[in-house]
Parts: sequence; C-alpha cells; structure tokens
Amino acid sequence: MTPPSSVQGASAPHGLPARGRERVIIEAVSPVLDAGAYAVKRVIGDEVTVHADLIADGHDVVGGELLVQRPRAPGEAAAPVAPRAYVLEAIANDRYSARFIVDAIGKWQFTIRAWVDHYASFRRGLLRKLDAAQDVQVDLLIGAELVAAAAARATAADRAALQSSAAALGDRSASPSERARVACAGELATLMARYADRESATTHPAWLPIWVDRERARTSAWYELFPRSTGADGRHGTFETAAAKLPYIAAMGFDVLYLPPIHPIGHTFRKGRNNEPTATSGDVGSPWAIGSQDGGHKSVHPELGTLDDFDEFRARASRHGLELALDIALQVTPDHPYVKEHPEWFKRRPDGTIQYAENPPKKYQDIYPFDFECEAWQSLWIELKSIFEFWLARGVRIFRVDNPHTKSIPFWRWCIAELTAQHPDMLLLAEAFTRPKLMYALAKAGFSQSYTYFTWRHTGHELIEYVREITAPPISDFFRPNFWPNTPDILPEHLQYAGRAAFALRLVLAATLSSNYGVYGPAFELMDNVPRAGVEEYVDNEKYQLRTWDINRPDSLLPLIARINQIRKDNRALQHNDIVFYETDNPMLLCFAKRAPEVENTMLVVANMDVHSPQAGWIDLDAPLGSTPARRVASSEHPVQLHDLLSDARYFSEGHRLFVRLDPNSAPAHIFRLRRRARTEHDFDYFV
Amino acid sequence: MTPPSSVQGASAPHGLPARGRERVIIEAVSPVLDAGAYAVKRVIGDEVTVHADLIADGHDVVGGELLVQRPRAPGEAAAPVAPRAYVLEAIANDRYSARFIVDAIGKWQFTIRAWVDHYASFRRGLLRKLDAAQDVQVDLLIGAELVAAAAARATAADRAALQSSAAALGDRSASPSERARVACAGELATLMARYADRESATTHPAWLPIWVDRERARTSAWYELFPRSTGADGRHGTFETAAAKLPYIAAMGFDVLYLPPIHPIGHTFRKGRNNEPTATSGDVGSPWAIGSQDGGHKSVHPELGTLDDFDEFRARASRHGLELALDIALQVTPDHPYVKEHPEWFKRRPDGTIQYAENPPKKYQDIYPFDFECEAWQSLWIELKSIFEFWLARGVRIFRVDNPHTKSIPFWRWCIAELTAQHPDMLLLAEAFTRPKLMYALAKAGFSQSYTYFTWRHTGHELIEYVREITAPPISDFFRPNFWPNTPDILPEHLQYAGRAAFALRLVLAATLSSNYGVYGPAFELMDNVPRAGVEEYVDNEKYQLRTWDINRPDSLLPLIARINQIRKDNRALQHNDIVFYETDNPMLLCFAKRAPEVENTMLVVANMDVHSPQAGWIDLDAPLGSTPARRVASSEHPVQLHDLLSDARYFSEGHRLFVRLDPNSAPAHIFRLRRRARTEHDFDYFV
Repeated sequence: MTPPSSVQGASAPHGLPARGRERVIIEAVSPVLDAGAYAVKRVIGDEVTVHADLIADGHDVVGGELLVQRPRAPGEAAAPVAPRAYVLEAIANDRYSARFIVDAIGKWQFTIRAWVDHYASFRRGLLRKLDAAQDVQVDLLIGAELVAAAAARATAADRAALQSSAAALGDRSASPSERARVACAGELATLMARYADRESATTHPAWLPIWVDRERARTSAWYELFPRSTGADGRHGTFETAAAKLPYIAAMGFDVLYLPPIHPIGHTFRKGRNNEPTATSGDVGSPWAIGSQDGGHKSVHPELGTLDDFDEFRARASRHGLELALDIALQVTPDHPYVKEHPEWFKRRPDGTIQYAENPPKKYQDIYPFDFECEAWQSLWIELKSIFEFWLARGVRIFRVDNPHTKSIPFWRWCIAELTAQHPDMLLLAEAFTRPKLMYALAKAGFSQSYTYFTWRHTGHELIEYVREITAPPISDFFRPNFWPNTPDILPEHLQYAGRAAFALRLVLAATLSSNYGVYGPAFELMDNVPRAGVEEYVDNEKYQLRTWDINRPDSLLPLIARINQIRKDNRALQHNDIVFYETDNPMLLCFAKRAPEVENTMLVVANMDVHSPQAGWIDLDAPLGSTPARRVASSEHPVQLHDLLSDARYFSEGHRLFVRLDPNSAPAHIFRLRRRARTEHDFDYFV
Repeated sequence: MTPPSSVQGASAPHGLPARGRERVIIEAVSPVLDAGAYAVKRVIGDEVTVHADLIADGHDVVGGELLVQRPRAPGEAAAPVAPRAYVLEAIANDRYSARFIVDAIGKWQFTIRAWVDHYASFRRGLLRKLDAAQDVQVDLLIGAELVAAAAARATAADRAALQSSAAALGDRSASPSERARVACAGELATLMARYADRESATTHPAWLPIWVDRERARTSAWYELFPRSTGADGRHGTFETAAAKLPYIAAMGFDVLYLPPIHPIGHTFRKGRNNEPTATSGDVGSPWAIGSQDGGHKSVHPELGTLDDFDEFRARASRHGLELALDIALQVTPDHPYVKEHPEWFKRRPDGTIQYAENPPKKYQDIYPFDFECEAWQSLWIELKSIFEFWLARGVRIFRVDNPHTKSIPFWRWCIAELTAQHPDMLLLAEAFTRPKLMYALAKAGFSQSYTYFTWRHTGHELIEYVREITAPPISDFFRPNFWPNTPDILPEHLQYAGRAAFALRLVLAATLSSNYGVYGPAFELMDNVPRAGVEEYVDNEKYQLRTWDINRPDSLLPLIARINQIRKDNRALQHNDIVFYETDNPMLLCFAKRAPEVENTMLVVANMDVHSPQAGWIDLDAPLGSTPARRVASSEHPVQLHDLLSDARYFSEGHRLFVRLDPNSAPAHIFRLRRRARTEHDFDYFV
C-alpha cells in the first residue's frame, strides 16, 4: 500500500524520460471505455471512427496514423502480425480521425502513433516563402536532405524515385522555381508521407480493445419456451414434442429460441405450484432448481429426453432459422452432485449445514449458492466455465445467464474472456434486473446483451428518459439492451388483466425501441394476464407447473408479431438503436425515429400510449429532443412520404409538422418508413 | 509495435487472475485527470471531495476507504509513510464519497480500497430476521465467528472488547434477544468497521495525484513593469531606480511584480524602435533577445545593475508585499554564449548557418530557437532546467514563461516535475496565446497559471461563453486563468483610442471574472491607447525603447485599481472562480455571482458593457445560466441587501428580480457584496 514516488515511471539520471525527442502528445482517444480497461463493443461490418487529439508544440505539421490489430483466429499462432496503418486526417484544430471497418469477429485492438512531419512543414513554409517572393535556395537544400533521408528509409521499390527527387531538389544548376515544383509534387508528398520519419514518433501507451460480435448481438428477436409444457393432454413435454412447435415459432419470425434450464430438477425443498413452500406428488419443480441424482448442469432432465434428443432438437430448430439459447443458472439444489463432490465450494454454517440462498427475511432453502470467496475459488471458476464449454461443444452459442449479478463480477470477466477467445461467436444475455451500475459492470465484464427496466417503464416520459440513457455513449458503447414485455418472473402491472391493445402496444414498443427484444410465450401472444395475488407474477406460473396453451386461438397476436418481425427484418434502421425522440403536443403520443448508418433507411414510429381511447395530436419533426438539427427527418424543405408498414397506408408530410390520430382498437402505432419526396410526386427515393 | 495478447495482465494457468476473491469493482473515481496521467490542481486549505463507484455482486454491504498519501517534504527520506484512511460513505446506489483537507503544498496522492463487509451484511440480515420473528440461533453463531476473527486482527487495545463480544454473541445460554442486542451495539459496529476483513479487498490500481499549490496560484494580482523605463530624464533605468517605484505599485494593491527578461540583450540583428528591422545607435533592443558577450540567462543586463543589485531589489519588493516574477524566455540571440559553447543544441542549415526562428513568411533573424529534437536533448534539457534553478537559488519563486508553446511539452512536463519536487512553492505562468488544446496541454504539463483569450473577448456573450468553459471541470481542475486587459504585445482593438470608461471596464472584468489577473503598467493605469499602424500593438512600444511615464497624472486609474484590489482582498469569493452568470433583459448588462466555498461570502457583479451610454435593465437572479436552483443567490424567500463596494451604496432586493442602471461616466459596474436580509431590517447576516 505504498504509493510510488512518482506517477511517471521512468527514472534515468535527472529523472529524464527514455524518449525525450517525442514532441507530440496524444490525448482524448476514442472510442475507449475506462481508459482501455474494458472493450467497447461493435458488430461485424461496423465502421469504427477513431478520434484523437494530436498536440505538438509550435506550428509544425503533425502526422499521425491509426494502427489496427485484427483479431487472431482461435488457435492461430501467436506470431506477431503487423498492425494495419490508416492515415489520421485533421478535422479541427489538433483533432484527427480515421475510420476502418471491423470485418471479423473477435478482439480488435488499436492505437495511435504521431510525429512532427518535417517534410509537410517544410513544404508549407516553402509555399509561403514563394508567395512572399523570398529566396528559397537554402530551403530547397533542406528539402533535398529530408527527401534523401526518406529514400534511405524506403523500400527498394520507392527508393529510386525518392533519390531522384532529392537530387532534383538539391540541383543548384536548376532554377529555384523548377526545384520548388519538384518539392511540391503530389507523388513526392505521397511518398514522403509513407516514409515519414517516425524515429521520434509518440505512440499512445495502450492498445485499446474493441470487441466485435456477430450481428445477432445487436439484432435479435427472442422467444422463450418451456419445452415441458408442449406435451399432449397435459403430459410432461419432451424435446420431441417441443420440436413440433418449431414451425409455429418460426412463423412468427423469431430468430432465437430460448429454453429455461433443461437440467435435472432437485427434490429437496422442491417448491409446489404457485411457489408453495412444499411440493406435492406430481409437482414438477422449478427448472432453476438444478441438480438431482440424475446429474447437474451438464445433464439433461430425463423427462425431456437424452443429450442426443437435445442435439436433434437443436439441429431441427436451426433448420427453422431458430438459434437455440440455453439458460445457465449457476446455483444448485441440495441434491446436485457438486454438493457431495465439492463441499469446499459452499459456505458452511456454524451448525454444520450448508448456507442456502437468502435475502433476509426471504429464504430459498432449495437453492445453494456458490461461495465465490471460498478458498477453492480457482477450481470453482474452472468448473463453472466448463459448464459453458460443455454446451459450446454441443454447438450452443447463445446463453441466457440467470441472475449474473449475484455472482462475482471478476469471475465473469475472466470466464467470458476465456470462452470468447475460443468461441468469438458466443453471445451472452445477462438476466440482471438490479442496480444500474451493477448492470453496466456486467456489460463491461463481457455480457453481449442485458435485460433492462423496459418491463417496468410504462409512460412515454419514462420510456424516453430510459431509452435515451441507454442508447447514448458511453453506455451504448458497451451495453446492449434487450427489451422484454413479459418474462416468467414478471407480469407487469400494466399487463395484468389487460386486453389486446395493451399487449399489442408493448410488443410494438419492445420490437421498435430496441434492436434486441423478446417475449415469453405462448403466454405473451395468448395475452395471459392473470397475476397471482399480491405479486407481479403469473398465477399458475410455468416455473412451477406444466401449462397447456391453445396456440391456435383465433385472437392470438401471432399475425401482428409476424408482421412486426418482418418489418424489423426488412428495415435496417430497426436493427440499430440510433434513435431520436420528437416532441408531441399530446403526451399520449410517443414518437421516435431510427436510422441505419450503413444504408438509407429511416423509420418513424408513433405509438398511442393510451390503450383505451383514440388519441390525436401534432408532432414537430423539426425538433428532435436533445439532438442537433442534422438529425431532422423531415422539414419544409424535405417533405417526405410516410409509408405505414403496419397498415400499408401512405401519408405525406408537407412540412415539419405531422398530424397523427391512432385508435388502439385498430392499431397501437404507426410504423412509418420514410421516403424523401422528389420533385414529382411519382418519383420517390429512399430518404437519407 | 506488437499488441499484447491480452488486455488483462495476469496469466496463471487458465489465465486466472492473482486475486480472484476480490468481489468489489472500483470505478468512476474522481477527481482525476486523464486516468491519473496528470495531477488535478488544488490550493492549500482546499477541501477535496473524492467520489467512487464501489460495485459488488449481490446485496452485501460494501465497505470502503479513501487512502491519502501526503507530500514528502523535499529531501525527506523516501521511507514509506502509511497513508491516512478516511471512511467512504454511501451517498447513492453504489456511489461513495469522502473528504479531506490538503494542508500542505506538494504532490498528494490518493487511492481507494473496498471490500464486502460481512459483519455489516450479517447485522442488517439479523435485524430483518428479528423483525420477521425468525429463528436467529445459527445467525448469532455466524456473528460470533465474524467478531472472533476481527479480534484476531485487532490491536491489543481493542482485542479484549471484541473477544468478549464474540463470547457474548456465541453464548447459547443467553437469550437470543440479549445476544442480538450485543450484535447490534454501536461500539461493536465501530470496532468491526475498524477491523473489517480486508483480505479480499480490491485496491484501485492507481495512486491518483493532486498537486497542491500555495494560495497565490489561485489568487494573484500582477503588475508588469519595464525597470529600464524608470530612469530619470529618459536615462536607462536600473534596479535602483525601479525600486523607487515600489511604493507606487504597492499602493495599488498588487501582489506580484513581473519583470520582462533582465538579461544581457544581443546586438546581432537587434530590432530598432517600433520593431524596425535595423537598430540605430542608442536603440536598447528587446529584452526578449537574450544573450550577449555579457552573458545569457543567468546574467543580469549590466545597464540594470549587478546580481547583487537584483537581490536587493527583490528584497525591497518583498518588503512592499510584492513578490517578484521573472520572465524566462528559452531562446537566444546569435550573441548568446550558448551558441558558441553548445552548437549541438541548434539546428544547422545546409549552408552551415544556424536556423533562426521563422514562421514563414515571417523571419526572426535575431532569435535562435533551441532544437528540442537534437541528439543532445538530454544536456539541453538539463541546462534549461538549470536556468530556473539559478534564479530559484536567488529566492525567485514565480516565473512567467515566454511562449512555452513553442518548446517541447514533454520537456515542460519533466522540467516542472523536477523543479517543483525541490521547490513546491514555485509557480509558473504560461504566456501561451495559442490553440486551446495546446494551452490545456501546457497546464496539464504543470504550469500553475496561463494567459487566456480574455484579452480578445469583448462582448458579454463572448465572455460568458469563455469564462464558463474555463471555470468548469474538467478544465478548472488543471487550468488556472490569468486575465490581462493589456500586455506589451497586445493593445486590443477595444482599448485603441479608447477612453477612461473602457479601461475601467476591462479592469473590473479582469479583476472580478478571474481570481488571477494582471496589467501591464504604467501603460494601463495611464490609459495608453495609441496603436502602431496596422498592428494590435502599442506605438513606441517599451519592448524596443525606453519610455517615460507620468505616474502622477491626476486622471490615472490608480484610485480605482487600489479600490478593486482591496475589494478582492476583502472578499474571498473574488479569490475563487466559483461563478454563475445571470440572464438580463439588456444584453449590455453582464451579471455574474461568485462565492467562496470556505466562508460565507457571495459577490454579485453587474457590468455595463457599453462604455458610451448609460444602460438599464432587469436581472433575474432566480435563473442562473446552466446552473441548478441551488445556486440561487436571491429569491422571493431570500431577499438580500446589496452593498456596492465600489460606490459604498446599499440596495435591497425584495424578490429575485433586480433593476440596475449604470452610467459609464460614473462607474463601470456594481460590485455588490450580498447579505441575507433577516427578519428585521436592522439585522443582517452574511448571505450563504
């Protein structure tokens, strides 16, 4: 705990630094998270814009480059690969930028190198002196020296050209104007930039990480299903019966199928239906109570089938365009094999018993948490990681992690880094409904997506405030929201005893506000709306019992879900969270626009937050909240066509004010695709 | 240039970290500048408030402490001194803070340590279980174990008390309620916090630096004087004749007397009067053209006197309450001894000559810059540092550095760190009129104060924008502005041919907007207002010739200057830059309030920006620009008395709206001290 004697490291005699001739200071590099301690997140194909301040004393021209290190493929030899260099362009006083495309998944790294560019400075000075009709004889010799020095640094291919330029510059028999023409030639400038003297270059001390995921990390539509509820006639379902539902789920347009834990369920202290403290015979128990004599986290609940059945189910889901997501809940029942085999991983109480989970005064005697402070933490961490490895080996690449916020954050940081180094296509959704900073800490630790407070954000004002917080940097650089209208744990107040309009509204909001969203079905599309008394939870919850769902009910939300998922697929803007909100003169109307950075696609959503009555009002598209006029989607100069992709109706805006009327009985929202109106009304372009 | 294979350092087998049981994450520590690469600046006596996010998984109580390392006195043994610990108090979800006073100058360092507090968590759980009438027998035994473990960590003095508490808690013969009372006793909580188990504590990886200056770094009033212009009857002045002006300068209330360079002046390419390219016989040359056969930066210009005369002058200035500031200009004339003795420090041109200063097409053939990229940079740096050391050894502690932005920033960083380690009372004013980021880079490199753009900020709007930028964090954490209405280099347009009102206004603005300010006199108080044609500079500039000033002129601004400097001394609010601006309904009225954090002192300044006509208008004290209502200085509930310290008139505000009328012919501004009006009008308190 003794502080260092100096913050700056080096200490030669006189405390001189090792490289005192570096004149450029590099500051304010972005994107960066906590000075590089954590990676910023991007998705394959994204263009990354890097900014940096390059500050040198005096008035010399500064040169700089962005150095980019691509990810190594897993197992690729650790031989150093030369980073790729991109020229940093000046964009303002002392501010520079460069862009590159991340075209592979995995950990990218970048840094900045900058130097005083003596040739560019010489060239600028020469031109100014020529303008002022000054003698430049000596200057041309200085230029010749600089070019000759660059020739010595150049590859053989470029050396001759540089040498000949140096000779021409230094040729006293030629006229100064002829030699100046040589000095200022474009090809020479290009060569001189390439072979700029980097000997006294400053290199930013850190390689800054960017984690690049596959596209599903940013864009996904999840469907949560209890396979055990797919049995016929109230019998326990299996992977086989669940597979029969795959066409139904695929028809709705989801792309991730998430299963609650599929492992053997414990018996000791098993909960009964509706969370009764004692199970009665025939009660199936909670899938999150993991572990019995039949095995633990690397086993399949016998009533669902075998590991082979699971593999077959995963393959069939895949053929329907559904990627499987497994639930990993790092906790055990008293019957889990770990309890006997590894008592050192659990906290023992003074009475000799193992400490069960509790959040006083609540007790969860059917659950033993792992003790992340135990002395055997190393073997515990390695075993927990191996659970993921087991399912990764069986082809699973998406995991929904149960309550990650009750497990050590340093564990997650290590575990995710180790796993993704081998499987950069792995994605993890954090089921963390907890304090905001803890949710953000998990995202920094490596979780690809996170559950959010969307489930409880009800009014337009609440949604605007929350969505703006999580979709702006720095949060949006590492935290990817996944919006869920319901989960097996939560039937929010606004859906309790609610009708079709409320479910439709929450669906539209989740699917358009966030590029990642999910529903727990069939409870959602069948609008299950009855809570257990006193709690924000379903009565007869599938967590504790089997349910039978009539998925063919004519009032199912299936057609609306299918339509919205199709709109999401057709419109890149909805696959991003580049969002601005607009003022409306009716607080019941929520209005926002989204756009895609890579293609011309702008979407405007207007939702009626009132699920009982029609609402109408004016929207001012000229006044995006907290944004710049550059983000305007329409104005008097830019009239647009608004194509409602829900109703297929087309509207026109002549100015920046838009009148909207929505009746919850016919549609929860307009989901407009905007097209710029050209000179004639018959000629439409996509709106930029 | 090969990136590391992993951002996280450690690599045991399985890549396990060394300390995997640390469950707390420490983030968002402040105050901090560029992740600790540079020190934030404070002044002795300041209270520093440290904030940090302490984030642990789950719901356990987190304990944390701020560790503070005081500066070592120069030469003090490097033996490790234990840092002082301050308890971090929770102020919001996962957000903690602690405060300490920096009561010594020099480099302070702090860091954060945090842990899961098992006893506090146990205690909270116990209370909840007791509330729910649950059995707590086992819990009490857990508590007893925790207390016994703390006893083992405790000093002898506290051990017995902890052991007896542990015994009482574990005493199964006593009633649970009696034992619970023991567990929750306040004294036990205090002891358990003191001996909390820090074995798995997380320590923030960096010691974060705070540089603490003496108070003059934040609060100073400078007067710039050319000693050579103090001779009688147009003769060259000396330290002796300059000393005769000390009472005059002291009477105006300045506290820093700054002299342009006092070294021998070169002859080669000497400039004539009004910057004529060629000097004529009798031309004295520019003091910034340093070096002749009489010596260089460690010598005194013979016409001013000897080194002994200088010492005597410094001592006499000090007796008048004037601290001397010397000008250090790191450049030489062709006649400077360095040119012959150390040609390796200069750039040589292909024609064999030394490269003079130029900013094409401008040439400064009388000046040779040092080449900070020369191979001999180490001996150059050491010699340049020794110039400061020479004058430090003669008792000088303040330096005004000429054009620091044309010298290498890494040099300054090293030089200032080395010098202040030996002389923490040293202060440096950067004469950097350059690009904002370069000015900020110099401040980060260690300059105590900086010249600013104030000199060219003319309108109220310009001033509000600029002052708000430089007085808010992060800028205010490292950059201390010094406002100059004029300098020998700059007679700004708004003072050219201007009258008394304009000079008075600029004086009030400089002295009240910024806690550091200065004037170049006697040109300022005598309202010298004639520019040389075509430039923003004085005609017959003292830089190139002697001037004779009639300091006894009856229209001198001396009385106003003396009054304002006295007001600054009497009011701590003006010694800080804790400032808010207020809306006025007349753009010609500029209104702002300042307050002192350490005493009850609030000042309200209203300036008439129109130097020709009276202006009147309303000010809304309820609406500070860009600030929170907590910064209100007056409102309907808080009527105040406004005591104008310039005119000695007293006014009252009954509400938050204030009517003001100012005539530039009588006063440039109101400088109000605010007092809260108590119940009766005869009873005033200082306004908080």
